[in-house]
Amino acid sequence: MTPREAYDQLATHSKKTSVFGSIGSVLGWDQRTYMPGGGSKHRSEQLSLLAGMGHAMRTDPRIGEWLAVAEGSDLAKNPESVEAVNLREWRRGFDKATKIPQALVEALSKATSRGYDAWVQARKDNSFAAFRPHLEEIVGLVREKADALGWKTSRYDALADNYEPDATAASIRAVFEPLRKELAELVARLAATGRRPDPSVMDNDYPVAAQQNLCLEGAKDIGFDFECGRLDITTHPFCSSFGPGDTRLTTRYHPRHFSHGFFGTLHEAGHGLYGQGLPQEHFGTPMGNSVSLGIHESQSRMWENFVGRSRAFWIFFLPKAQKAFPGAMGGKKVDDVYFAINESQRDFIRVEADESTYNLHIMLRFEMELKLIKGQISVADAPGAWNETFKKLLGLDVPDDANGILQDVHWSGGGFGYFPTYCMGNLFAAQFFEQARADVGDLDAQFAKGEFRPLLGWLREKIHAQGMRYRSAKLCEKVTGKPLSHAPLMRHLKAKLEPLYGLG
Amino acid sequence: MTPREAYDQLATHSKKTSVFGSIGSVLGWDQRTYMPGGGSKHRSEQLSLLAGMGHAMRTDPRIGEWLAVAEGSDLAKNPESVEAVNLREWRRGFDKATKIPQALVEALSKATSRGYDAWVQARKDNSFAAFRPHLEEIVGLVREKADALGWKTSRYDALADNYEPDATAASIRAVFEPLRKELAELVARLAATGRRPDPSVMDNDYPVAAQQNLCLEGAKDIGFDFECGRLDITTHPFCSSFGPGDTRLTTRYHPRHFSHGFFGTLHEAGHGLYGQGLPQEHFGTPMGNSVSLGIHESQSRMWENFVGRSRAFWIFFLPKAQKAFPGAMGGKKVDDVYFAINESQRDFIRVEADESTYNLHIMLRFEMELKLIKGQISVADAPGAWNETFKKLLGLDVPDDANGILQDVHWSGGGFGYFPTYCMGNLFAAQFFEQARADVGDLDAQFAKGEFRPLLGWLREKIHAQGMRYRSAKLCEKVTGKPLSHAPLMRHLKAKLEPLYGLG
Repeated sequence: MTPREAYDQLATHSKKTSVFGSIGSVLGWDQRTYMPGGGSKHRSEQLSLLAGMGHAMRTDPRIGEWLAVAEGSDLAKNPESVEAVNLREWRRGFDKATKIPQALVEALSKATSRGYDAWVQARKDNSFAAFRPHLEEIVGLVREKADALGWKTSRYDALADNYEPDATAASIRAVFEPLRKELAELVARLAATGRRPDPSVMDNDYPVAAQQNLCLEGAKDIGFDFECGRLDITTHPFCSSFGPGDTRLTTRYHPRHFSHGFFGTLHEAGHGLYGQGLPQEHFGTPMGNSVSLGIHESQSRMWENFVGRSRAFWIFFLPKAQKAFPGAMGGKKVDDVYFAINESQRDFIRVEADESTYNLHIMLRFEMELKLIKGQISVADAPGAWNETFKKLLGLDVPDDANGILQDVHWSGGGFGYFPTYCMGNLFAAQFFEQARADVGDLDAQFAKGEFRPLLGWLREKIHAQGMRYRSAKLCEKVTGKPLSHAPLMRHLKAKLEPLYGLG
Repeated sequence: MTPREAYDQLATHSKKTSVFGSIGSVLGWDQRTYMPGGGSKHRSEQLSLLAGMGHAMRTDPRIGEWLAVAEGSDLAKNPESVEAVNLREWRRGFDKATKIPQALVEALSKATSRGYDAWVQARKDNSFAAFRPHLEEIVGLVREKADALGWKTSRYDALADNYEPDATAASIRAVFEPLRKELAELVARLAATGRRPDPSVMDNDYPVAAQQNLCLEGAKDIGFDFECGRLDITTHPFCSSFGPGDTRLTTRYHPRHFSHGFFGTLHEAGHGLYGQGLPQEHFGTPMGNSVSLGIHESQSRMWENFVGRSRAFWIFFLPKAQKAFPGAMGGKKVDDVYFAINESQRDFIRVEADESTYNLHIMLRFEMELKLIKGQISVADAPGAWNETFKKLLGLDVPDDANGILQDVHWSGGGFGYFPTYCMGNLFAAQFFEQARADVGDLDAQFAKGEFRPLLGWLREKIHAQGMRYRSAKLCEKVTGKPLSHAPLMRHLKAKLEPLYGLG
């Protein structure tokens, strides 16, 4: 078999595996949107069958044989070529899939399945004690998983790498550390002003049908293609790209609150624009894939926060919102809305946090999971450590574990290493957005006229069309000329928030 | 390996194959309800991958080995036992799946894929000539398929058996022949009266949102469980049972016509009630499956026509309909609606035909496809033969092929042998319903009070809970004590229609 033949076999297998994987995405989407309650047992049987068959495809020993033939050849010579990129990522995927022993896969699956149920109940009962033995078991298994995957400096590195390839505890800390200091200080200064926006902007009558229409309009305005996608309702919003031509957004609506539905939609539409912008001719191979969770999140955060929460956007969009909600938005001015949607408010729940405080919630979680994985704190001591760190970062006393360590689903599923990608998404978004301002021209003037194509075109060319050509750190340098830094995000937050709070 | 071990292997494999097959059903449902247009290419790739993998599962040579061990054993001794039934149907499925050579499967798949596109265009252009070469190729391949499957008396038997196990040209003709004579005579007599119902009942303003609510109510009233199902909108209504707890109905609405949406919903709900009534503990094995297309159709037709179009139903349901459509139904009496929904009207299009003429449309198609498969007429002569037979059966001159031989999709997909099951569904429904009247008591008095549980309970026990224990002819004898006959359907139609038309 020639290297080219081996490569072609890999590509064919990769496409088949991707199409197969996308079948599970359809079932997952249906499960969270339209499936009747009675269907859940059968749906888990379908998904579990797909999971087993998909795992067999990803660990097919022929992949190793094909890789062995193709990797040493000329195909891998130019690291930026389509072939070299695909070979690099196929190797990574195959190694990851085969390194974890089957017994550990099954133990993790059982522990996290039980752990999820226990977490749901523990959160409801506000009782960490009931979740504690499950979390202890999961932490133990996740540490085993990290060891199976292999690591050099820190066991945590093996976990972070699952979500953000090449990310390490050290590389994350290098940007989080300076961000934390400056951000905690900014958030405290904003809170000290005692200023608050007019509460009637956010808390008002927002009929759900009108919200749906406005969300469709907003997503369309920023460029989401509804010929190749949809927007539906779910409890926990998500975006799922099934494949070329089919990207599904979901959001949720609160009849007395504007932000959840609208900015949730822009957020998911940001993910969706990335999905719609990936090079379709490479579908099913790494070159047709997104880079990482952090880069994916940079796209959702950019459209949600850097575009959707900008003053310029609301110069364009307020008349539409006023037409949709004559009661709630009728008499409001651009600056009323602009302040209301950018309020910096220290509170306990991550998913309800604003653009500034959100990052502090993440850094808390990063510190916590790093210590748990390193064994620097025990699971039993975790709630106390959580509350102490929360006080340091956000200045508030956590009232109970439901508002503290029990609020997130991630750890119950073994998802250690995931949290940092949320904050890295914000950091990437800020750095990309600064560069876009430099490259594309006066974005604010464009947004105020409803022109989002110049920014989208720039993202398409610089990021979407590149697929997985570069890992995230390299992509950042390629696009912005600099390594990832906390500075652009801090500049963005200060420039937006200080004037709103009469500071600066 | 013991016979029991072989049997258990077969059961496990059968369940896995069924769960896998139900994954394709979810994708098919999504494709016809919510999928954006841009997703169709990727969706065919997903479905084609599933089809290939599903075929591999159904033709797994181990099935033959397991069957060989289990079939001769005590497990197969009592033909009505769960084990014997499952072995019988596994054998049938395995033989069918393995008898057709792969080259023929592929040739048929290509020919019908091209044939479908050609048919869509030909119907649009009203040009049979453009479809003719495709139909000739398909008829040729379908004859080859029949030969591969094997037959004794008539090549057509091998095809009919795919949709209605054990049905043959002769067995179908034995009930169709007397039905045709009596029914054509009845339809002609009704038409000769010149009577027509008040057209404003059907043709009026029926706002779609109100139709949707009323359809949900109607389906719920007759017993469809929406905790384990849904009702959505599609172009061509269908019902899809994914598995235990998840049965999806679809319908379509016309804002100026009441029947399509409402009776379409009752029809699909009838299919759905069968799906919801199958024995869940046997899911994935034949004992948990429906008997045949004819028996499935007997359930949809019963709820649509024998229940939904009964006078008693409308004594109960008219107040609800009047509340939903105060304009269109406000002043109407039960008898106005009863006549309007039971009008016997000779026309050209099968899918728009009423309860009486519908069967004549089917018998025309049965005669046509029988002759095409036997080679008694050529494809070139088919349009002329169609029009001639149509005139004989329905007394009308077919104006063009779009209103004649080009109207149905079935033949373009190679579905010869399918049509008779529609009429057999009506025949089974009539014979079952007569028996239910004898067993359950005064069904009309129950319907008039909105009590449908006694009938549903009878169907559940006699038919649904039996799974595939009996083939359809045997089931009919078991339930009604007699072989299938045309007489109950004729009695039903005469009893309903003659009074409405002032005859009898």
